Amino acid sequence: MNREKTFAVIMAGGIGSRFWPFSTEENPKQFHDFLGTGKSLIRHTFDRLNRFVDADKILVITNKLYVDQVKEHIPQIPEENVIGEPTRRNTAPCIYLGARFIEGMDSDAQVIVAPADHLILEEDKFQSCIQLALDTAANENSFVTLGIEPSRPDTGYGYIEFEQNDSEVKKVIQFREKPDRSTAEAFLKAGNFYWNSGIFIWNNRDLIDGIARHVSSIQNALSSVDLKDFEALEAGYSACPDISIDYALMEKAEKVNVVRGNFSWSDLGTWGSVYQHLEKDAFGNAGTTAEFGNSSGNLVVDEENKKIVLESVQDLIVINTGKALLICHKDAEQEIKQIVARQSKS
Amino acid sequence: MNREKTFAVIMAGGIGSRFWPFSTEENPKQFHDFLGTGKSLIRHTFDRLNRFVDADKILVITNKLYVDQVKEHIPQIPEENVIGEPTRRNTAPCIYLGARFIEGMDSDAQVIVAPADHLILEEDKFQSCIQLALDTAANENSFVTLGIEPSRPDTGYGYIEFEQNDSEVKKVIQFREKPDRSTAEAFLKAGNFYWNSGIFIWNNRDLIDGIARHVSSIQNALSSVDLKDFEALEAGYSACPDISIDYALMEKAEKVNVVRGNFSWSDLGTWGSVYQHLEKDAFGNAGTTAEFGNSSGNLVVDEENKKIVLESVQDLIVINTGKALLICHKDAEQEIKQIVARQSKS
Repeated sequence: MNREKTFAVIMAGGIGSRFWPFSTEENPKQFHDFLGTGKSLIRHTFDRLNRFVDADKILVITNKLYVDQVKEHIPQIPEENVIGEPTRRNTAPCIYLGARFIEGMDSDAQVIVAPADHLILEEDKFQSCIQLALDTAANENSFVTLGIEPSRPDTGYGYIEFEQNDSEVKKVIQFREKPDRSTAEAFLKAGNFYWNSGIFIWNNRDLIDGIARHVSSIQNALSSVDLKDFEALEAGYSACPDISIDYALMEKAEKVNVVRGNFSWSDLGTWGSVYQHLEKDAFGNAGTTAEFGNSSGNLVVDEENKKIVLESVQDLIVINTGKALLICHKDAEQEIKQIVARQSKS
Repeated sequence: MNREKTFAVIMAGGIGSRFWPFSTEENPKQFHDFLGTGKSLIRHTFDRLNRFVDADKILVITNKLYVDQVKEHIPQIPEENVIGEPTRRNTAPCIYLGARFIEGMDSDAQVIVAPADHLILEEDKFQSCIQLALDTAANENSFVTLGIEPSRPDTGYGYIEFEQNDSEVKKVIQFREKPDRSTAEAFLKAGNFYWNSGIFIWNNRDLIDGIARHVSSIQNALSSVDLKDFEALEAGYSACPDISIDYALMEKAEKVNVVRGNFSWSDLGTWGSVYQHLEKDAFGNAGTTAEFGNSSGNLVVDEENKKIVLESVQDLIVINTGKALLICHKDAEQEIKQIVARQSKS
């Protein structure tokens, strides 16, 4: 890799409604220190990338509501590198917008695109994977994604089917959306499926060409907009389809590779996935401030530093914030999105 | 009954540790509005008695820590009628102390003794029972207690065994402590058992004589103490045994009657008994501020007016206060006392 030419785009526009009331529209998931590490998820993401990408080549694209919060969490980034999306779209418009900014900085750039709110351990391994992906993109002019070796038939992740070979770099056959349980089990048995990490690597020029070819609606809306004219950008952004980069480009492009990510990874997409990464007591309870009696398998997250006691309860998610208290059985955490929907109506 | 001669003693020294964290040593059960009626339990108790006992003949005996709180809750009572116990004893010393104060006001008084923290509905019926009990005590010089017709084999109450007759006034055979389940079932089947309400009626002179005869240790400690000399009172009180009036007197006296209480009553001794008296939704959830999804049989008490959501959980007791949060399975509420004990150690 060529450090001079390497850029990164951190996507930080999500609201993480599955984590209500801990994560809210005003203070979404990426700004929280979910695992009690002392740093927010977005700050971890920046630090992880900053080991091999210069701070002035790291862009953060977020909702316009969160621009100030991003600057607070990552003061190292030049102000102009924090870009507020005028409106909520999916990943494809966001990534194309980033590409246009980078195009103005270096016409020959390579780009790493990463979500702000994932958990990655083993950062050395992560760095090696990224380097391999950058080299692959440079050599083959391909779109590269990092795939995670699945450890269980998780139905909460998308999967990537690849052609078996002996290399760490595989050719992608197809992307598969979140499967049902039996399909996920079949994927694991087949052995040529990775989890889709949502981390992408490519040459910036290839991305801009790829969008032009496969998603002309985005190209039409944003390719000629003056990036300093917020009103024009807003109009262009509104005209973009709400579409993911997986669906818009990766599934359609011809040259798509996946590099095996051998680092520990979680999208922290559910409380269940957060729970997996927390330290637990002998009875499987996680939560630093709580006292557990005859209780097991519980997750307690408390923003108020309250005295919390759980007695004779199992497998609960307990989230206490200054404004709200959620007590939800672990098996029902997919209901949290509906709860949030009901809150915003009432 | 003769209103002029009728006095009442409200016993308000308990701390209700089974209701942690809602009820604490600083702010115990009797000062809470448990059922959301707009009045504290002690205020309800005063109002109920004040219908037929003049305010200046109602005494409150409480721990010295709570004297000011009592005065706040019941400003109608003359200040000197609120008596602070120097130390924590059981009901017998408290009742004897009340008797000595009343002796100084009227040597011919009749007395109603009632706990501050019970729930009583149907106050007209309550009044009729009290009047019958006062007349009985006057006519027979007996110690009278109100018994409640048991509606279920509750193991949380003491029982009173009586001689069957056709009157509302029965002769007590014996007091029975909290039974196990099968014993309680046998009591119900036998048909001559009431729950012990802990409400007593007698002539003040009989009570003083009864204590002198059956619990000379209390008489020795308190009979000659100058009630205005707090240090002497403290010394006398410390010398008293920690003993209930049931055990000290009622089980030993010869003339003991029980009047059938046909009003609705609960000692609100557990969250389960509080829950029974709260309004519930179609799924048996009680708690005004909470939102319940796929949840049933839960009790939520919230002092913070927080947004509380329960999702897919059953039979929980959830108590949220400014300082603490308790989540306890209903079947385990007897553990709460141990939890409080652990808290006070830590």
